[in-house]
Amino acid sequence: MKVIVDLCLVPIGVGVSVSDYIVACQKVIADAGLEHSLHAYGTNIEGEWDDVFAAIKRCHEAVHAMGAPRIHTNIKCGTRTDREQSMRDKVESVTSKSGARKAPS
Amino acid sequence: MKVIVDLCLVPIGVGVSVSDYIVACQKVIADAGLEHSLHAYGTNIEGEWDDVFAAIKRCHEAVHAMGAPRIHTNIKCGTRTDREQSMRDKVESVTSKSGARKAPS
Amino acid sequence: MKVIVDLCLVPIGVGVSVSDYIVACQKVIADAGLEHSLHAYGTNIEGEWDDVFAAIKRCHEAVHAMGAPRIHTNIKCGTRTDREQSMRDKVESVTSKSGARKAPS
Amino acid sequence: MKVIVDLCLVPIGVGVSVSDYIVACQKVIADAGLEHSLHAYGTNIEGEWDDVFAAIKRCHEAVHAMGAPRIHTNIKCGTRTDREQSMRDKVESVTSKSGARKAPS
Repeated sequence: MKVIVDLCLVPIGVGVSVSDYIVACQKVIADAGLEHSLHAYGTNIEGEWDDVFAAIKRCHEAVHAMGAPRIHTNIKCGTRTDREQSMRDKVESVTSKSGARKAPS
Repeated sequence: MKVIVDLCLVPIGVGVSVSDYIVACQKVIADAGLEHSLHAYGTNIEGEWDDVFAAIKRCHEAVHAMGAPRIHTNIKCGTRTDREQSMRDKVESVTSKSGARKAPS
Repeated sequence: MKVIVDLCLVPIGVGVSVSDYIVACQKVIADAGLEHSLHAYGTNIEGEWDDVFAAIKRCHEAVHAMGAPRIHTNIKCGTRTDREQSMRDKVESVTSKSGARKAPS
Repeated sequence: MKVIVDLCLVPIGVGVSVSDYIVACQKVIADAGLEHSLHAYGTNIEGEWDDVFAAIKRCHEAVHAMGAPRIHTNIKCGTRTDREQSMRDKVESVTSKSGARKAPS
């Protein structure tokens, strides 16, 4: 089962600056070989269900290992059986109709 | 690694009434032997990470098998290494200080 | 426009114990006269859109005033035009079919 | 109070294809003059609290007016008092440390 996820992990108890922890998660996700893209409020990830959720678990383990005693994570997660759809397809299904402004790169 | 999750699964493409699908998910979670409680906008689940996320995957599989072609799910997920905390502890840490109104039962 | 919301506010930069901040938010919501109920991973709130979101803004203001330099909040928010539905109705539409375990009180 | 939001609106009861509704929301947000960027699982929006949440309310009104009887929305919402931070700053605080892959544009 293929899944598209939006992951937003918030370390708690380590002060206000959390970017080092997000960098570590990006590395975990990249090392898993998963398609992903960072935006201003999370990271989109695409892949097989088991691979994606194994990577999310490793993100929690990595952030705890860095010293964060508590983690709060939000996951949006979409599956569909009617057809294949990639992250890029989802964005294009909107921008092709609207000229919507996409995330900067 | 113990986790407390708030799960909110939304089947798409099956009309506005979704309670049959939520009932099916409740059964999946109960069959997994996981501590859980339903509220008006989701279900809290408590357990070992792998057990909880295996149950969430089975919820997606069950809802697709019932005919929903597309599913959108929100998961809030908390882990901590500083101490053990149950769902009941979390509620009581607030209500003991405030007399806050708890979910009806 | 009536709305049912699930609110989960996380103060950042104030350590791992956040219950005092949640207690303050419960008071803001109660003072607004909004129907609400606490669960282990948030608070369900029911009311008119403008009243509910004004209260959520006041929660942010109150938590910042208590000293939290940063806040991360999750909101699930449902509206419908086909019929009236309360938080209690939502829970009962599931429990009446399943005997699901509801949140403790 | 400045806010950065991640908005994900899901119309329910209108079938599996929801891109027309997302296009309508993009137009509402653009017409409000708010900085925003679309990604594969939502739209980041930046602005004053009242302006951003007024636009989100108009999105719900617009999507109901298009015929969706029910809407489920997820909002992640961040405020901070310690310093100003834009959506672009948030992405750059991570990418400058990691070479993380950003959302395509």
